[in-house]
Amino acid sequence: MRYGVLGTGEVGRALAGRLMELGHEVTLGSRTADNPVAREWATAAAGRARAGTFAQAAEAGEVVVNAVSGRVALDALRAAGAAHLDGKVLVDVCNPLAFEEGVPRLDPVESDSMGERIQRAFPGARVVKTLNTVSFKVMVDPGRVPGEHHMFVCGEDAVAKERVTAMLGELGWPTGRVLDLGGIAVARATEMYLPLRVRLSRVFGHEDFNIEVRLAG
Amino acid sequence: MRYGVLGTGEVGRALAGRLMELGHEVTLGSRTADNPVAREWATAAAGRARAGTFAQAAEAGEVVVNAVSGRVALDALRAAGAAHLDGKVLVDVCNPLAFEEGVPRLDPVESDSMGERIQRAFPGARVVKTLNTVSFKVMVDPGRVPGEHHMFVCGEDAVAKERVTAMLGELGWPTGRVLDLGGIAVARATEMYLPLRVRLSRVFGHEDFNIEVRLAG
Repeated sequence: MRYGVLGTGEVGRALAGRLMELGHEVTLGSRTADNPVAREWATAAAGRARAGTFAQAAEAGEVVVNAVSGRVALDALRAAGAAHLDGKVLVDVCNPLAFEEGVPRLDPVESDSMGERIQRAFPGARVVKTLNTVSFKVMVDPGRVPGEHHMFVCGEDAVAKERVTAMLGELGWPTGRVLDLGGIAVARATEMYLPLRVRLSRVFGHEDFNIEVRLAG
Repeated sequence: MRYGVLGTGEVGRALAGRLMELGHEVTLGSRTADNPVAREWATAAAGRARAGTFAQAAEAGEVVVNAVSGRVALDALRAAGAAHLDGKVLVDVCNPLAFEEGVPRLDPVESDSMGERIQRAFPGARVVKTLNTVSFKVMVDPGRVPGEHHMFVCGEDAVAKERVTAMLGELGWPTGRVLDLGGIAVARATEMYLPLRVRLSRVFGHEDFNIEVRLAG
């Protein structure tokens, strides 16, 4: 599969790196064509990966991964170009987080979400929200956390969710631990989990954890 | 211990009933003195429990439990009276939830929480937020859900949190599964988990579940 991964931060590099290790062709996209982090990454990847602009990465990908911060995601996707997203699975892993005096703040929140905003702004894309409930290390290596902990997906397109569930399987998330929570509006619920996750990470002193939903019966 | 439980809904009746079974003296408080649900409950409890107004319940309790809906909690606590809460542990289990056309909506959210509002409105009370992340059945019978799933507490007063942790122990939550997440502002994080819980309950078709935080290492 050809992936275009937008964003050269920890999340983008982790996902692009793991997808490349799994044998996929990956283009890591950034705001400018000469991003040194992206170029270094592509050089180290030696042939199976490329670096480019958001537009080049989105154009190259059969599946596009939005791995930039939620606060700049719409700008990055506009730079990627609606034509390069049309009809494609768009995996949205962002959270609209900013820290204000150490307090995590979300915007949008509750009455809207980044998942929904992206779907509305790019109606031709098949947006699937996932992976936004764990740290970048756990995203690409869920086995580092013991137990049958869960990953959530939501989105409007059932086939797109199946494809993303298959991608999650390659990343180490067994299908039985991937919970389809419904349409893209459910992104509100998974994005609103973030303050609890941030607080837990402060209490534990690290982000190497995830939640397992335990059911009666 | 003498408990005053405010609220005659499922949450209030479940907590009042279980605390009474555990041997405590419980007064179940409602808006009016002649609430038929509360009177029937007290009659069935045969002597170890009483029904009364919010003010009577708060006055009677050494510990007061706010078990009314978050949308009316401040009104109920004003009716209970600041003088009857002063210096007491006030266990806040509410969520500021309302359903609008089937969609769960929270108010306040993100920049404030009911836990904080209650603490601000009643500075003499020692507010501890807990139990708001599970259904009323799981609150009083955590063993119905398998696994080492977790309960959260937060609040400004360390001694109050210790007392509430002891109460949780009586309800069936072992101390090792009770995570102290910090001050009362953390109520934002646990209240914002609610939309995810509501969504999970729709997917599963019931509320008999809880989350276990799984840690690496």
